[in-house]
Amino acid sequence: MDKPRFVVVGGGLVGSMVAALLGREGYQVEVIERRGDPRQDAMESGRSINLAISARGLNALAQLAVGDDFLSLGVPLYRRAIHAPDGAMSYQPYGKAGQAINSFSRGELNRALIVSAGRSANVSLVFNRRCTDIDVQTGRVTHVDAATGADERVSTGVIVGADGAFSVVRGALQKREHQDYSQDYLAHGYKELFIPARPDGSAALERNAMHIWPRGRFMMMAMANPDATFTVTLYLPMTGPNGFDQLNTPEAVQAFFVREFPDAVPLMPTLIEDFFGNKTGAMVTVRTWPWRAGDRAVLIGDAAHAIVPFYGQGANAGFEDCLEFIESLRRQPGDLGAALARYQERRKPNTDAIADLALANFNEMRDHVASARFLWRKRFEHLLHLVIPGFIPLYPMISFSLIPYAEARAKAERQNRVIRWTGWALAAVAALAVWAGLRR
Amino acid sequence: MDKPRFVVVGGGLVGSMVAALLGREGYQVEVIERRGDPRQDAMESGRSINLAISARGLNALAQLAVGDDFLSLGVPLYRRAIHAPDGAMSYQPYGKAGQAINSFSRGELNRALIVSAGRSANVSLVFNRRCTDIDVQTGRVTHVDAATGADERVSTGVIVGADGAFSVVRGALQKREHQDYSQDYLAHGYKELFIPARPDGSAALERNAMHIWPRGRFMMMAMANPDATFTVTLYLPMTGPNGFDQLNTPEAVQAFFVREFPDAVPLMPTLIEDFFGNKTGAMVTVRTWPWRAGDRAVLIGDAAHAIVPFYGQGANAGFEDCLEFIESLRRQPGDLGAALARYQERRKPNTDAIADLALANFNEMRDHVASARFLWRKRFEHLLHLVIPGFIPLYPMISFSLIPYAEARAKAERQNRVIRWTGWALAAVAALAVWAGLRR
Repeated sequence: MDKPRFVVVGGGLVGSMVAALLGREGYQVEVIERRGDPRQDAMESGRSINLAISARGLNALAQLAVGDDFLSLGVPLYRRAIHAPDGAMSYQPYGKAGQAINSFSRGELNRALIVSAGRSANVSLVFNRRCTDIDVQTGRVTHVDAATGADERVSTGVIVGADGAFSVVRGALQKREHQDYSQDYLAHGYKELFIPARPDGSAALERNAMHIWPRGRFMMMAMANPDATFTVTLYLPMTGPNGFDQLNTPEAVQAFFVREFPDAVPLMPTLIEDFFGNKTGAMVTVRTWPWRAGDRAVLIGDAAHAIVPFYGQGANAGFEDCLEFIESLRRQPGDLGAALARYQERRKPNTDAIADLALANFNEMRDHVASARFLWRKRFEHLLHLVIPGFIPLYPMISFSLIPYAEARAKAERQNRVIRWTGWALAAVAALAVWAGLRR
Repeated sequence: MDKPRFVVVGGGLVGSMVAALLGREGYQVEVIERRGDPRQDAMESGRSINLAISARGLNALAQLAVGDDFLSLGVPLYRRAIHAPDGAMSYQPYGKAGQAINSFSRGELNRALIVSAGRSANVSLVFNRRCTDIDVQTGRVTHVDAATGADERVSTGVIVGADGAFSVVRGALQKREHQDYSQDYLAHGYKELFIPARPDGSAALERNAMHIWPRGRFMMMAMANPDATFTVTLYLPMTGPNGFDQLNTPEAVQAFFVREFPDAVPLMPTLIEDFFGNKTGAMVTVRTWPWRAGDRAVLIGDAAHAIVPFYGQGANAGFEDCLEFIESLRRQPGDLGAALARYQERRKPNTDAIADLALANFNEMRDHVASARFLWRKRFEHLLHLVIPGFIPLYPMISFSLIPYAEARAKAERQNRVIRWTGWALAAVAALAVWAGLRR
């Protein structure tokens, strides 16, 4: 069998990553992207939460050797910095000393990956093209000039759907029978806001921390950019008390911020313009099965498993897909159907697990993260992590290890049982000691 | 406010029911149906499981006064008749004496409802028209001649999506943000088979029973038709052991039936032709939320909540939607948005409940229904039903009462707890008696 040719739909983070990796494996690849070439054009902005790239993402970037140059652009975040309503601060380390998640600009990372993919002679990149028809039976992708709708062309090959949460490739798969699919929106939306650098160019908050303002039913976050500014993300219910629909006047927004985030207000001079100028984004969890149509089409990244952003794992999970995809091609040379089957079967339980964990982390971040009981539990876990070899709390397993997500979750559940039983055992010993003392 | 005009997309069971009811309320209604007029054309057949109409469906039919004439066409089924692999029979009554579900032909019922809707001067019925565009913001439905694709026309009004499990109206709702949606296919498919009448015109099996051949991982069912024939439905896994994909030769099918359904084989002279001539159908559970777009579009029946057929409630649930829809319009005169909000909020928890129950009943029918423990439990429930006022097992609550589905499920859970605790209490009393006896 000849080596298959791949048509990658979407040149975002995952599409450019998988194209670069496929090119290096010697496959012919064509990437079809709706937007312009990020190597030439100005970048889109406005609706992107900053990316937190951690171990899984760094592992994939290392395969392309773009990691080294690129890492200097990121800002390492070593801990959470929790802002209480009265302005008091508390901190939680993410892992052991030196372990950090890395705040990156999505646009810069995308550009680096496009540059990397473009260096391969096997990879052709086609920009400003919109797909109008996907045929998953024959592997034909019809596309037109994104601006004019003219100049229709057809690309043929194994279709790799890397076209995000609202994937048209997935839409084509769904038109067949027996395609399971779900999309679940959070009742919360998000809005991007901004903290500029101080007049002297310094950062207005600690740069190497993830800033969180947890408020129970809602929250705000801020992540540093390389230029000492912060990208702020506000998460509110779409409707109801403290909902986006209620904050419909500058006065209401100002009063809400002064009441809930008083320490942040002086740092946000463009708050009102940003609030009314930036669109309110929606957050959706997408699941589907299967991910492939025979040996003609396959989904990857958000197209297969869009998740909510609260574990900072969306891009990391997509990059892990790419590595498993390449590994599956290597293990099943000459049998593309078997390779795609292996890929989807190994990834699905893990992306299901991170989807669940990301939803659960939303509750943790906006709510428990501020409770004393939670803080003590985190400290106890951190202590065990430092002193017991092999004991790794869930967060560092997800962020600082390559343990598959589903396995990490199962291990964390076992560890939690041990903690609970230890607690009961200690309580029993204490009760016994008291009883023995009383008998004397 | 003028009375709104309704455009009902789909003239199936639920579309024709809601159109007939709306017409009687004085609303102007246009029904757009892809197929031909069942009052003139021959009926479609082949992929329809016979309908089981029970209390909820009869209640809706009674509103149209088509019930009386029509009921004579149905076959009442008073009990399950279970066929063991060795041909032995056992029986389970569905409810109290005289309570029955009614086996109907989908085509005949649809025709009766179209006749009923057509009698209203307010209802215009348009057949052989295919919808090509649905605009849920403006309430515009674009449709063309189903055969030629020509003769484009636009109908305007409040869009009622009664267009089934693969609803195009729902597709239009999904294009907006914040639309939750899921479709889950069973790993089982179904195939329609046939038992003809005996040469003397009599029925080959007991007519007033639902015949079930439970076999653990798969099963077969048969429901009588008015002409003494039976519509048989075979449920198998799509793939794997005893799967549709394995039964790919006449010899394999014959051997499978002789092994698993030996008592049915002599009754099915066209088994092999039917098996290879009829398509294998898929079964899907569809959920979505919300069901409405403002006061311009709303979903009803399978378009809002397609369920698997194992509780015989698909059509009954759709008819209940229609009654709640009309009731909501009556309660919110002049405020269509509020009426649609009331409708969807009252129906959603109930249709979610019946979707779950239908999935659970699949396990019951193919598996437990044959176990001795299950039979004894059913007998005990049936006894309590006969002797304790107000104790109604789940099946009769769903099939022979108008208790909302979600409430019925909650009540059944409470009753199950009582049964369990009673069991424990009896066991404890017995143990105590034994202990007291031993001490003597």
